[in-house]
Amino acid sequence: MSIAQPILLTPGPLTTSARTRQAMMVDWGSWDDRFNKLTASLCWQLLDIINGHETHRCVPLQGSGTFAVEAAIGTLVPRDGKVLVLINGAYGKRLAKICEVLGRDFCTFETAEDQPTTAADVETMLQTDPRITHVALIHCETSTGILNPLPEIAEVIARAGKRLIIDAMSSFGALPVDAAKVPFDALIAASGKCLEGVPGMGFVFARKEALDAAAGNPHSLAMDLHDQYTYMAKTGQWRFTPPTHVVAALHEALLQYKEEGGLPARNARYVDNCKALLDGMAELGLRSFLPAAIQAPIIVTFHAPRDARYQFKDFYERVKAKGFILYPGKLTQVETFRVGCIGHVDAKGMQAAVDAIGEVLREMEVLDI
Amino acid sequence: MSIAQPILLTPGPLTTSARTRQAMMVDWGSWDDRFNKLTASLCWQLLDIINGHETHRCVPLQGSGTFAVEAAIGTLVPRDGKVLVLINGAYGKRLAKICEVLGRDFCTFETAEDQPTTAADVETMLQTDPRITHVALIHCETSTGILNPLPEIAEVIARAGKRLIIDAMSSFGALPVDAAKVPFDALIAASGKCLEGVPGMGFVFARKEALDAAAGNPHSLAMDLHDQYTYMAKTGQWRFTPPTHVVAALHEALLQYKEEGGLPARNARYVDNCKALLDGMAELGLRSFLPAAIQAPIIVTFHAPRDARYQFKDFYERVKAKGFILYPGKLTQVETFRVGCIGHVDAKGMQAAVDAIGEVLREMEVLDI
Repeated sequence: MSIAQPILLTPGPLTTSARTRQAMMVDWGSWDDRFNKLTASLCWQLLDIINGHETHRCVPLQGSGTFAVEAAIGTLVPRDGKVLVLINGAYGKRLAKICEVLGRDFCTFETAEDQPTTAADVETMLQTDPRITHVALIHCETSTGILNPLPEIAEVIARAGKRLIIDAMSSFGALPVDAAKVPFDALIAASGKCLEGVPGMGFVFARKEALDAAAGNPHSLAMDLHDQYTYMAKTGQWRFTPPTHVVAALHEALLQYKEEGGLPARNARYVDNCKALLDGMAELGLRSFLPAAIQAPIIVTFHAPRDARYQFKDFYERVKAKGFILYPGKLTQVETFRVGCIGHVDAKGMQAAVDAIGEVLREMEVLDI
Repeated sequence: MSIAQPILLTPGPLTTSARTRQAMMVDWGSWDDRFNKLTASLCWQLLDIINGHETHRCVPLQGSGTFAVEAAIGTLVPRDGKVLVLINGAYGKRLAKICEVLGRDFCTFETAEDQPTTAADVETMLQTDPRITHVALIHCETSTGILNPLPEIAEVIARAGKRLIIDAMSSFGALPVDAAKVPFDALIAASGKCLEGVPGMGFVFARKEALDAAAGNPHSLAMDLHDQYTYMAKTGQWRFTPPTHVVAALHEALLQYKEEGGLPARNARYVDNCKALLDGMAELGLRSFLPAAIQAPIIVTFHAPRDARYQFKDFYERVKAKGFILYPGKLTQVETFRVGCIGHVDAKGMQAAVDAIGEVLREMEVLDI
């Protein structure tokens, strides 16, 4: 793979292909028919990935992924609804914060950061509080890289007649979710993650009936997904100025996604990346925070070396000088750093990153790892 | 000027320079120090344009300009505030809609679409309803291109001890506003307008005291400007993933803005563009909707030809085939179309657009203009 330096080993923004970036060299008229076709094609291709044409609508939204998450909760949870938020990291906490700011009633179920939520936990919670109408879940919690058991949890929620909202920001496109098998009201992701587009827009897959019934729910004009969808269905256009270059880049990234072999191929490459990273880092003596069984091939959290000569800032700058951008840890109790497996990079690239990390630890004379 | 085809004669997204688009060929780490410096430099340069370093803070926000407008109202108007919205077009109506959705009390003062709001009108309204705390105004109303008399209105509002929120989306960077002379609590604009960046982010100049007092006001997590600013001031980073490529493009566009000669030069070029357009279209017999005195050099509304052979869709497609993208009218009573004067284009480009329009009208055999 030909890669622009430095390589971003982060949970997004991440390294994109030159072809994807090249798609931004054109200025598009946001009212023009050609751009409308680009938007329609983009939504169609996104629905393909979740096998959602029959059941769901794709609603793109300007802004970061968090904007789309807030929009999904604000649009799809009625004002008198109650959300059970499942938490095992920073992004789960953010879901709860969104409910709080929006004034939606909510409760939380929190497990340790290395502990997936189980379907049994959710079942108990739903039995305990019958006022719960919706459950919100992070698929792959980026603060550690932990994978929550989505299909099992979704089944329990459906059986209880409740609604599921999935923040699949860092997993969508790499980990399979089939809308015909996993029941959900909303699944949310963004342009700059596993689809390898550039950041600047999110999108929500909303169950058709849930979206159609959502008029009047939203707390916001800009983040009203019902209005966004209705206007787009009628005119082919976005309600407010779209990030045209970001849309064009995502469209181009989706063409490459398909050419690469779609989700199975993207998943296989990231699994290879993750394996190359874990094996290489283990050889250096660096320990990953999560056991392999609950580690998603998205981003890996490593324990920081114990050696006093290790300082993250210095380590980060030295690795960056060798062409790789790492990511800080996000845990409060344990000192860690993170390395992403996603983006336009392959196992050879990951091995090169491991080599660079090894060289830096030797330069820093970090021995106690 | 070297220009990528077709030229967008729209109110944004608009034609950008190749150098601006080229800035998007790099992937930036959103946590990286180099990107933080880019953001800081961007905010600094933006504050320069309004001479606002002493009085205001610059808060960038993901999403379109409307997101930033909603964020400004939601953050800066207290929940028990009341907004007087001045309306003479579609964007004024959108301000009122935002207040309604956010649940902020508001009243409106509406004039005809070819009638600027006057300072006397505002004075009367403020005397009539002492519960009004804020006045919201569109500087240049893009639905016609009309310019509202900002300095006079701002003076009346300040004298009454009220707060002003200015939607300067389509005027910022081309029409002067000096924060040391014109009192306002918020002025809002976006990347893809007169600064000639690409669309995907907005920014709000918020008066320091007003922003600092705004904690607890917002209706939204994503659009909380107080939180956005506080986090950025502390960490140098955006709270949620920034549209890195859009930020880099705007930064590069600002460097070119300065090199061109800043606001006076940008204003002069757009004034020349507007003159070339108005003169050329008058020669073709096409009549502009607004009198010259209230016409901003941003976008011009023209009456559609009366001839039955004129159909906007056909006209639009034919002009586009000659390399220029026009914009539909937005008036309900009168059939019109619009032509933008802004973007990486000069008077020669505008003349070429007029020539193309003339050719198309002849091809369509539109005689009764």
